Amino acid sequence: MSTLNPRRTVAELQELRALTGDANGAQRVAFTPAWMAARKWLREKLASLPAEIHTDTAGNLWTTLRGASEKCLLLGGHLDSVPNGGWLDGCLNILAGLEILRRINAQYHGKPPVTVRLVDWADEEGARFGRSLFGSSACSGSLSLHEARDLVDQQGIKLPDALREVGIEFERVKESGQELQNAAAYLELHIEQGPVLLDLDLPLGAVLGTFGVERHAITFHGQAAHSGSTPMNRRQDAFLAAAKMSPEIYQIAARSGNGVCTIGACTTKPGIATSVVEECRITLDQRHLDGAKLANMLAEAKAAGEKFAREGNVLVSWERLQQIKPVRFHDDLIALCDEAIRETCGQSHRLPSGPLHDAAEVASAGVPTVMMFVQSLHGISHNKIEDTKEEHLELCVTAFDKLAEKAMKWITTRQ
Amino acid sequence: MSTLNPRRTVAELQELRALTGDANGAQRVAFTPAWMAARKWLREKLASLPAEIHTDTAGNLWTTLRGASEKCLLLGGHLDSVPNGGWLDGCLNILAGLEILRRINAQYHGKPPVTVRLVDWADEEGARFGRSLFGSSACSGSLSLHEARDLVDQQGIKLPDALREVGIEFERVKESGQELQNAAAYLELHIEQGPVLLDLDLPLGAVLGTFGVERHAITFHGQAAHSGSTPMNRRQDAFLAAAKMSPEIYQIAARSGNGVCTIGACTTKPGIATSVVEECRITLDQRHLDGAKLANMLAEAKAAGEKFAREGNVLVSWERLQQIKPVRFHDDLIALCDEAIRETCGQSHRLPSGPLHDAAEVASAGVPTVMMFVQSLHGISHNKIEDTKEEHLELCVTAFDKLAEKAMKWITTRQ
Repeated sequence: MSTLNPRRTVAELQELRALTGDANGAQRVAFTPAWMAARKWLREKLASLPAEIHTDTAGNLWTTLRGASEKCLLLGGHLDSVPNGGWLDGCLNILAGLEILRRINAQYHGKPPVTVRLVDWADEEGARFGRSLFGSSACSGSLSLHEARDLVDQQGIKLPDALREVGIEFERVKESGQELQNAAAYLELHIEQGPVLLDLDLPLGAVLGTFGVERHAITFHGQAAHSGSTPMNRRQDAFLAAAKMSPEIYQIAARSGNGVCTIGACTTKPGIATSVVEECRITLDQRHLDGAKLANMLAEAKAAGEKFAREGNVLVSWERLQQIKPVRFHDDLIALCDEAIRETCGQSHRLPSGPLHDAAEVASAGVPTVMMFVQSLHGISHNKIEDTKEEHLELCVTAFDKLAEKAMKWITTRQ
Repeated sequence: MSTLNPRRTVAELQELRALTGDANGAQRVAFTPAWMAARKWLREKLASLPAEIHTDTAGNLWTTLRGASEKCLLLGGHLDSVPNGGWLDGCLNILAGLEILRRINAQYHGKPPVTVRLVDWADEEGARFGRSLFGSSACSGSLSLHEARDLVDQQGIKLPDALREVGIEFERVKESGQELQNAAAYLELHIEQGPVLLDLDLPLGAVLGTFGVERHAITFHGQAAHSGSTPMNRRQDAFLAAAKMSPEIYQIAARSGNGVCTIGACTTKPGIATSVVEECRITLDQRHLDGAKLANMLAEAKAAGEKFAREGNVLVSWERLQQIKPVRFHDDLIALCDEAIRETCGQSHRLPSGPLHDAAEVASAGVPTVMMFVQSLHGISHNKIEDTKEEHLELCVTAFDKLAEKAMKWITTRQ
């Protein structure tokens, strides 16, 4: 006998938007007054539940509804946003999770079969210090204290000093790892932030995992030469070699199955109309859910770069900017997520996640994990125009609740 | 009976270099003390000739050896250089011309069949005010006083004020046009500044004319989208469309015969690794000796831009940055130049000039014109490494002298 009220979730999302957003979008940047106001508001909502609430050493907010078993079902999201962000990114899960805690508490009279916990991760976006997934990576253990210690914001304030301001002791943040001790499953609901479900005209999808990333700068080195006096066959045109990479990466992505490749930036030197380009630097961002296929995409791009350099009598050099391993979610939970979606709206779709999420950190720490995506209008996020149809928001709360119920059963069966 | 001494020209070029250059190259920027020192030095060299010397209203220095006919043979070049320039660019003609005046004066006992004049054009390079061919365009009449009046240097000094400093009254510069009154032929010797003669292993070439130029900025307008969450077939990638232009312009140039096309600059917005490119701006510089073929190259580039924009679901816009009409030199004089070169070193080659020269201004004013090119080592100029083999310098003085003699005969025959 469920008392789930998805309409209340929509109303609460709107209430949070009114409290912490403005005409330019959501303003809940982590560790700022608006973010703390959002947490205070959330704690007031949670107060009606017979739940224990505390903040861990990394600033993550945990709400625990004790169950018959110590094994925990975790529901996770984040209240923080980028500056001028969207109204749903991150907080959708928190408020859906709140509603699900209410339903579970009512249905099981305060004693569910397993312990259920809602976690509000601290600083998922990394908007201030440029390091995303702060709270979840501290908790999973993947955060490098060595690297994080020197992070500074645009005002030159160091991360440890900013954390101290909000009562977090930097050197102890990884002690938050103990929160995962009895974690048996982790579920995260999120807006898709892409156009896949929109194109398929489907409200919901089960997420297979998060893409691995290979990000490089590729520089082609040619020879500057006068645009008027240099015959075409004498040129060592760095732009020509770089330009050939662009159609090529579309072929590489197509051959890879579901991978994506992006040339996001191009700069030219000397960069004047009257000279052949001497040096051309492009960025190449490649993503795939399969580590081997990702490595193959990179190898193909390198081979293409060598070929185009050779053809154009220029040189090429590569510099790695970032490397992230792909994270696959748990097969059983993906199946349960699919099932919950189909029961709610008839049809499901499995898709990888391009953007990173806290779920990837939790999965990396060995906790069986899955995410559910709800359609994004315009396929866009990190923007005030980010939106999702109200009916889809209600559907996702319903489906995510079904998934939570199925996951509890799955945990008890596994024990 | 010639007393031409090409070795003396090489020695005088070296003397000028020592006087007005430093470790970084030639420093004879127009209207500066080094340029004025170069002119003073030149006047001293000219003083031994029974010639009339004066500066016209645009600052061009004219040396006139009166002949039997009022019809004039003009030899033109420029002492001014870019900052850190090459030692030969411009002044080669002035010193070869000096030697030719000496030979003609000696051979004809001060009374050649036609009047022979050497002109040192003022500010060919436009290094200070960004407007090249100042003196020759004032003389030819193509200079727009309206546009030139507001030119400023990097210190904010206006061109008219800078000219006043060296005794030139801006509003009167176009009165220099009267200098062309009896001009019957104009000859200019220059280093090639490109690699064509070097590749052919030829010392000298006859120049067909100067390229016309069509210079545009092309902007492709797509849609920014997350590099991780946007499937390849959903992208509106402005860089992809722009990149396809690069191999295409090589095809367009090849189809045009002797034209050249250059994409010299590329900028991307937002220009970050994690976003599909929303806006990509490239510059396209197209040059051809044939006006119709130049127009056709531009039309082909526009058609290609439209095609690539359509293929990639992006928009494209064009902005003209510069347009210069091609100038063809005089057929008779080209033939005489060829002849003089063959007589000097056995083999000649006809080629267009990519860079602009004062000769284009004189030709545009209706004076029969030709240029002779001497091989550039490295195919490079506007740089301290600009150089030409000493034996080629001697050959070019000899060949240019032969051309001057032929041109004098041609002028008298025409009368």
